[in-house]
Amino acid sequence: MSSTLPIAVDAMSGDRGPATCVPAALAVLREDPALELVLVGQPAVVEPLLAGLDAAARARVRVLPASQVVAMDERPRDAIRRKKDSSLRRALDLVAGGEASACVSAGNTGALMATAHFVLGVIPGVERPAIISSIPSAGGHTHMLDLGANASATPDQLFQFAVMGAVVAAGVHGLERPRVGLLNIGAEDIKGDEIVQAAHRRLQDSKLEYLGYVEGNDIFGDRVDVVVTDGFTGNVALKTMEGLAKMIGGILREEFTAGPVRKLGALAARPALDAIRGRLDPRRYNGASMVGLAGIVIKSHGGADETAFANAVRLGHAEARKGLPTEIGRQLAEAA
Amino acid sequence: MSSTLPIAVDAMSGDRGPATCVPAALAVLREDPALELVLVGQPAVVEPLLAGLDAAARARVRVLPASQVVAMDERPRDAIRRKKDSSLRRALDLVAGGEASACVSAGNTGALMATAHFVLGVIPGVERPAIISSIPSAGGHTHMLDLGANASATPDQLFQFAVMGAVVAAGVHGLERPRVGLLNIGAEDIKGDEIVQAAHRRLQDSKLEYLGYVEGNDIFGDRVDVVVTDGFTGNVALKTMEGLAKMIGGILREEFTAGPVRKLGALAARPALDAIRGRLDPRRYNGASMVGLAGIVIKSHGGADETAFANAVRLGHAEARKGLPTEIGRQLAEAA
Repeated sequence: MSSTLPIAVDAMSGDRGPATCVPAALAVLREDPALELVLVGQPAVVEPLLAGLDAAARARVRVLPASQVVAMDERPRDAIRRKKDSSLRRALDLVAGGEASACVSAGNTGALMATAHFVLGVIPGVERPAIISSIPSAGGHTHMLDLGANASATPDQLFQFAVMGAVVAAGVHGLERPRVGLLNIGAEDIKGDEIVQAAHRRLQDSKLEYLGYVEGNDIFGDRVDVVVTDGFTGNVALKTMEGLAKMIGGILREEFTAGPVRKLGALAARPALDAIRGRLDPRRYNGASMVGLAGIVIKSHGGADETAFANAVRLGHAEARKGLPTEIGRQLAEAA
Repeated sequence: MSSTLPIAVDAMSGDRGPATCVPAALAVLREDPALELVLVGQPAVVEPLLAGLDAAARARVRVLPASQVVAMDERPRDAIRRKKDSSLRRALDLVAGGEASACVSAGNTGALMATAHFVLGVIPGVERPAIISSIPSAGGHTHMLDLGANASATPDQLFQFAVMGAVVAAGVHGLERPRVGLLNIGAEDIKGDEIVQAAHRRLQDSKLEYLGYVEGNDIFGDRVDVVVTDGFTGNVALKTMEGLAKMIGGILREEFTAGPVRKLGALAARPALDAIRGRLDPRRYNGASMVGLAGIVIKSHGGADETAFANAVRLGHAEARKGLPTEIGRQLAEAA
């Protein structure tokens, strides 16, 4: 997990493939002279995209051939069995073999998680890996997990998610004592089911900075840094946010282009509109970590563009510098 | 359930109480000369608010005295036991006694649901009442339930929610064959737990226009009219929407007031900004139905202002005209 190891990039991944993944990775390479990359994919496609690099930068990039590509709709089981020479698999193999510090892919979420689980295994003390991501909030951002790695979670697993979420918030975002909340619903008489209640008691007894229950609106407030929930609820909440943000974006576009007067208004309001767009830009938050695996795996949105994919690579780099899996193992062992 | 019965309004309810509930109810009274109201609460507070009514309108309003008020943080059990002369309880008693067609309250959700359940009982075939509301979407609006009446749901209960949701969408919003979707998460290998899968099979075999699984983002699209989920997930999704919408509203305000140039821009953009505000105004969607009860009960947001509370009263009126509980009973019997 040393930062001297290169980052493995699944160069064939995502809806846009190498034409996006490679330039995005190279943009991050240019930012940090200590960073090395392994671009995994078909050399005939990847190599030409390196043409613009100077010799010093080129020396920090290796291309690892992989003949296959995992399709976005491929079944995870099939990906594991039949795509042993895929860019996704080879990138993960590098991490498992100690040749890369992290794997970054915009590929099929299910295939990436299943293959990563198969190839890397989990950190001792972790029953199930989870998906965690930053979400913009009034206080800066909130970390939320599980965003859909599992359809349900036991109290023990929710507790492990909490520890992992706190390590990510502390390690990647420098928070000293991340405030952890357990997602629940408000009505007094029906506060959650037995699983949530059992996880609540377990968290109350822990060394974490545990706030207790939080509700969906708290994700965007400034009272909590890590929101813990099961993968079903987390995924629904995440997709709900995406859907609502997209709808609001559509309404803004519609209303600011509805006729010439509105368009003039938009022109005058352009600095504000640009600032708003910038603050809500989902590309800033691209890159979810598959935490709990015995290696760093970052999942970029499949539709990511260069700006977005570069952020996923940066996240992998940041987690590698902090040796996140080692730290998670240490904290789980302490908490046990 | 005839529309000739008056609507019972819990005049003491909500954060703002009679000063908001009464004028809001009177605004709806003025819209429909056939509407009658029973305002339930403390006459000393309610009566003076009727001063501006002409004689014809005044003749359609009765004030029913109730000496107690259920507090917003009161435990549902305590409300049932100790607040038998509360405005909330008396309003529900009117519905149970066949003297009112619907009860509208901005009171404590838990107390309202528990008291309504106790006083009215459920429609035959309904195991658990659920909370349903309209949510703005690209296609107009989506109906979603359960938004938090229950912490979990069995496959049978999810099926009943689907039938009830379809009746509301058809009855109140005039959709002929509402398209029903079951909320799930996308990843192929972990599609939901056993409960969701069992509900899915049950819905596939039903006469409903069942689309299959939908995801969180579909709530805001135009492919589904009724989104069915358990009360935990539904409540988290609802609060998540509220939190995100509030944060985006805050960002808009901040960016359009950040200095004199931005403020001038906002002035020029005002028609568009007003239109956007109007389309996203949560007051338009105020009023959730507690479906499955043997009587119509509408829950307004506790913080509702006059505009918002009036919409909750309108919803109660619309459901009463359609005789919703009777229709739900009929459709559930057919589906069984």
